[in-house]
Amino acid sequence: MKNILIDCDPGHDDALAILTAIANAEKINILGITTIGGNQTLEKVTANAKNILEFVNSDIPLATGQSGPLTKELRIAPEAHGDSGMDGPYFNGEDYPISSKNAITFMYEKIMKCDQKVILVGLGPLTNIALLIKVFPELQEKIEYISIMGGGLNHGNVTPLSEFNTYVDPEGAQIVFHSGIPVVMSGLDVTEKAEITVKEIDSLKDKGRVSHLAYELLHFYNKSGRQFGFIHSPIHDLCAVAYIVNPEMFSGTSYYVDVVTDGKARGLTFADKRLVTDKGKNTLVLEGVDREMFVCLLLDALELLDGE
Amino acid sequence: MKNILIDCDPGHDDALAILTAIANAEKINILGITTIGGNQTLEKVTANAKNILEFVNSDIPLATGQSGPLTKELRIAPEAHGDSGMDGPYFNGEDYPISSKNAITFMYEKIMKCDQKVILVGLGPLTNIALLIKVFPELQEKIEYISIMGGGLNHGNVTPLSEFNTYVDPEGAQIVFHSGIPVVMSGLDVTEKAEITVKEIDSLKDKGRVSHLAYELLHFYNKSGRQFGFIHSPIHDLCAVAYIVNPEMFSGTSYYVDVVTDGKARGLTFADKRLVTDKGKNTLVLEGVDREMFVCLLLDALELLDGE
Amino acid sequence: MKNILIDCDPGHDDALAILTAIANAEKINILGITTIGGNQTLEKVTANAKNILEFVNSDIPLATGQSGPLTKELRIAPEAHGDSGMDGPYFNGEDYPISSKNAITFMYEKIMKCDQKVILVGLGPLTNIALLIKVFPELQEKIEYISIMGGGLNHGNVTPLSEFNTYVDPEGAQIVFHSGIPVVMSGLDVTEKAEITVKEIDSLKDKGRVSHLAYELLHFYNKSGRQFGFIHSPIHDLCAVAYIVNPEMFSGTSYYVDVVTDGKARGLTFADKRLVTDKGKNTLVLEGVDREMFVCLLLDALELLDGE
Amino acid sequence: MKNILIDCDPGHDDALAILTAIANAEKINILGITTIGGNQTLEKVTANAKNILEFVNSDIPLATGQSGPLTKELRIAPEAHGDSGMDGPYFNGEDYPISSKNAITFMYEKIMKCDQKVILVGLGPLTNIALLIKVFPELQEKIEYISIMGGGLNHGNVTPLSEFNTYVDPEGAQIVFHSGIPVVMSGLDVTEKAEITVKEIDSLKDKGRVSHLAYELLHFYNKSGRQFGFIHSPIHDLCAVAYIVNPEMFSGTSYYVDVVTDGKARGLTFADKRLVTDKGKNTLVLEGVDREMFVCLLLDALELLDGE
Repeated sequence: MKNILIDCDPGHDDALAILTAIANAEKINILGITTIGGNQTLEKVTANAKNILEFVNSDIPLATGQSGPLTKELRIAPEAHGDSGMDGPYFNGEDYPISSKNAITFMYEKIMKCDQKVILVGLGPLTNIALLIKVFPELQEKIEYISIMGGGLNHGNVTPLSEFNTYVDPEGAQIVFHSGIPVVMSGLDVTEKAEITVKEIDSLKDKGRVSHLAYELLHFYNKSGRQFGFIHSPIHDLCAVAYIVNPEMFSGTSYYVDVVTDGKARGLTFADKRLVTDKGKNTLVLEGVDREMFVCLLLDALELLDGE
Repeated sequence: MKNILIDCDPGHDDALAILTAIANAEKINILGITTIGGNQTLEKVTANAKNILEFVNSDIPLATGQSGPLTKELRIAPEAHGDSGMDGPYFNGEDYPISSKNAITFMYEKIMKCDQKVILVGLGPLTNIALLIKVFPELQEKIEYISIMGGGLNHGNVTPLSEFNTYVDPEGAQIVFHSGIPVVMSGLDVTEKAEITVKEIDSLKDKGRVSHLAYELLHFYNKSGRQFGFIHSPIHDLCAVAYIVNPEMFSGTSYYVDVVTDGKARGLTFADKRLVTDKGKNTLVLEGVDREMFVCLLLDALELLDGE
Repeated sequence: MKNILIDCDPGHDDALAILTAIANAEKINILGITTIGGNQTLEKVTANAKNILEFVNSDIPLATGQSGPLTKELRIAPEAHGDSGMDGPYFNGEDYPISSKNAITFMYEKIMKCDQKVILVGLGPLTNIALLIKVFPELQEKIEYISIMGGGLNHGNVTPLSEFNTYVDPEGAQIVFHSGIPVVMSGLDVTEKAEITVKEIDSLKDKGRVSHLAYELLHFYNKSGRQFGFIHSPIHDLCAVAYIVNPEMFSGTSYYVDVVTDGKARGLTFADKRLVTDKGKNTLVLEGVDREMFVCLLLDALELLDGE
Repeated sequence: MKNILIDCDPGHDDALAILTAIANAEKINILGITTIGGNQTLEKVTANAKNILEFVNSDIPLATGQSGPLTKELRIAPEAHGDSGMDGPYFNGEDYPISSKNAITFMYEKIMKCDQKVILVGLGPLTNIALLIKVFPELQEKIEYISIMGGGLNHGNVTPLSEFNTYVDPEGAQIVFHSGIPVVMSGLDVTEKAEITVKEIDSLKDKGRVSHLAYELLHFYNKSGRQFGFIHSPIHDLCAVAYIVNPEMFSGTSYYVDVVTDGKARGLTFADKRLVTDKGKNTLVLEGVDREMFVCLLLDALELLDGE
């Protein structure tokens, strides 16, 4: 059983990652969920998190975190996720309860109360997680690893070099990479291979209510992805959860990874592939995924939730 | 009565600032003291804080904070403060108690328990204070202002452009300047005018035990200052406390102030003097000080402590 | 007799600098004039140079230089100089001849043909001059010094930190400061003190035709300066020529000066006032000017040209 | 027949590129060779160029260029090329004549005298070529393309991100990429595939005098390459010449390529693979090479020169 905390900015792919984690309750114990400004403003992504959790009658504790990055100005992504940050379905989750604690204190207390190690899942800019591990360095021993969606060694999506999450808060990402806690990085290298096809999306339409919700999310997401050249839909954030459920569907390599914080290459993550520096390996960079297993994990999760 | 929290990296001038604050108990209520890696490592500056507090039989709560800046590597200043970070006197304060809370949580709780507004005093790199106000944005309304020693509009001391504290953690400084909380900046512009003369230092030698301690501190500090071209000794950190006790000994101007985080100008603080930007004023930059009143404040404080 | 080459981007103040240099023919021998994109595009500032030279029946050789900075994109200043780059008067100089040589080759040949040392005058971004001294390092011994209008140690005008010319081509400025050739820097520190009053401007209206031209230039320039908070008009570029005619009207200090090329402080010039580095002095920074003598130099020059 | 100018910093691989170009006289007309500080100081690489040309009784005109990059300080690579910059053989070429023109003027005149288009070959930092095309923008129409060895889209060799030549003078490289002249980029992506094996190196030992020279060069170069993890020897610079002789041995893709000039990613070249920007393609990035054809080109060239 893996104890996890999910820090996220839902976001269509965040929502699917959360649903999959909830459905895999025999492997994953979700201690809590926290939100971070990213795909949309903190207010909107928090509303989206409430909607998703309410929709599946969850009782997972939810707390809100930082509204923007450590030192940069927030940049959001309505071009990918719409005005609400999770356009597509109609929702009704405004009554889902929110913790009175801020995300950093909330995560700290959840980790300290857990008698086993915890895995942090970072699906948005890494601001909350960076603050958590900076303020409470004693957590280093209690965190098994940090599974992030972010970065990419071969290309970017906001700039030619940089992926959205590491671009939005490069200082937050640097604190995570430099923390001494192992990182598992689902960057664009792997997430763009973790696609669901149009046909697979369509197959969800007439199944149960959770599958239909996923259909509505993916239908919108697929349409917005077309403008960036995608025919099928990479479900980026789901990789960071799928790795925890079943690491064997992924291949990857361990590297020393760092991030550029300023200038033309802001947000670029890079690996010391040729051992040009003397830095030790800090990150498992996921590079390949068994696409069928990946999509199966999602479809099975949705089916399970449909049946509940 | 002003309620204050002092975040510091003692440091000769930090020590004199702390003693002066303690002596002005009718005006200043010290809620706690926290330490930050800066002039020396966190371990050493914490030992120094314990020594000073023990020396005057204080019972002010003390907590330790961050060992280094937000994203940069720590740079220390043994050339100014010696190997211990506070060379000169012999001390014996190792038993002074330390809070089990980290500096950020410690400050947060002290502020929340206080029914009035609190003034934060930042005498070192602004890492702890930056984390505090980032993690707990609700504090904005409870902090009257942040009185910092750091920066300078006309020259630096680590580089031609940058003062030590803002150079060590420019991201921390940026978070403070951008926080929306008013800043009172005792930069090199004013602190290098806040000198104690060699003669005034010598006058402390044969007074009471606290004055003699100050003599030992200043004697060493004056010697190390010679290599940087100072004949007398600017007591930089004391300005940030003296302003709280008696703002009338200072003159200054309100500006929008910002800081450069990277490159050749790392750590440079600058003011929008010509209103080239549309940013609102965020900082009162102290520029002048009545030197006699300033030294008097210190000498009176030491004499008072001698008599206790 | 001083042999000079003037590299400029006219510009109202460039025009007045050129006229003053021409009028002081008993002290200054103008070997040639070259143009550089800056206040306006290369095409427009070259047209302006032709107009001014034609207006006074000059036969000074003219050559065109770089259209933009070394590596940055050109930024122009129509807000100060109007759409033409020298709005105000009507001109008719389109037939003034232009050298077939580019500015760099042109300057090189003029310097090599001159049997004495030459002073370079840089009134715009330093791109042409930087290329000249990079391509022909042997010129170092033939250039007495480089008199530039640019930079400023205390504030900027494009950003809070940076003056227009050094902001536009900071790499060009860095090459000049690092060249080993002495620099005399008329930065904003001195040029904003080198003002002509509204009354003095008005006094030019009904004198001769060259004075009237200066009136038209200054009348426009004074109006556009109002939006930046100036009541009277600093004639920035004239300082760099006035220093050559009569250095005694200026005061200044020698420093090691350098420039920041990137980031928030792009274009900032700074001096190592506290000898924090071990770099030798490379620049005489002008700081004060006898305003009456300065304006007199201009008025006398215009009167002389009126009489020709 | 291709008319070319070779700008280089010999350098073992530069030497082999020059020899191969000379031997392919039926396809390539070498208008001249120029030197640039890079692998070693300008003085040393110029001595090496003289040695190579003298050794094969060449009469190709030779000129010296810039001693260091546009704005950065020179970094050399004795760890790869030895103290002389071309360690291994004994040479005797000190009497080879050098043009009185500097490299930039020299190249300009060669191009203007040539009645056909010219290909520039850049085997070192791109300082000379950047200055040439900046000072003489009219050359744009006379240069067919610029064939450079430099950069790399997937990893670096000086830093995890950056290749030596683009690291040493990133501003020079930026000027070349932004010039509007097509670039053919032999970066590490292809040059590390352009290896000569140890066995192939050994086969040169007992052939003629030029092959033996190549053996001595490659023997040293192979040894120094071992410390960087190479068993066989990539002949980086030869790619930029081989492409001109026979482009069909290469595969590649056209991209918009740019370079980072400052900070942690200084010298990084990157391509807009996902068309995130609206910039047009400026560079053919070579990615694959037929290794056997590549080595054959070299061996045939050496054999031809042996026979002369």
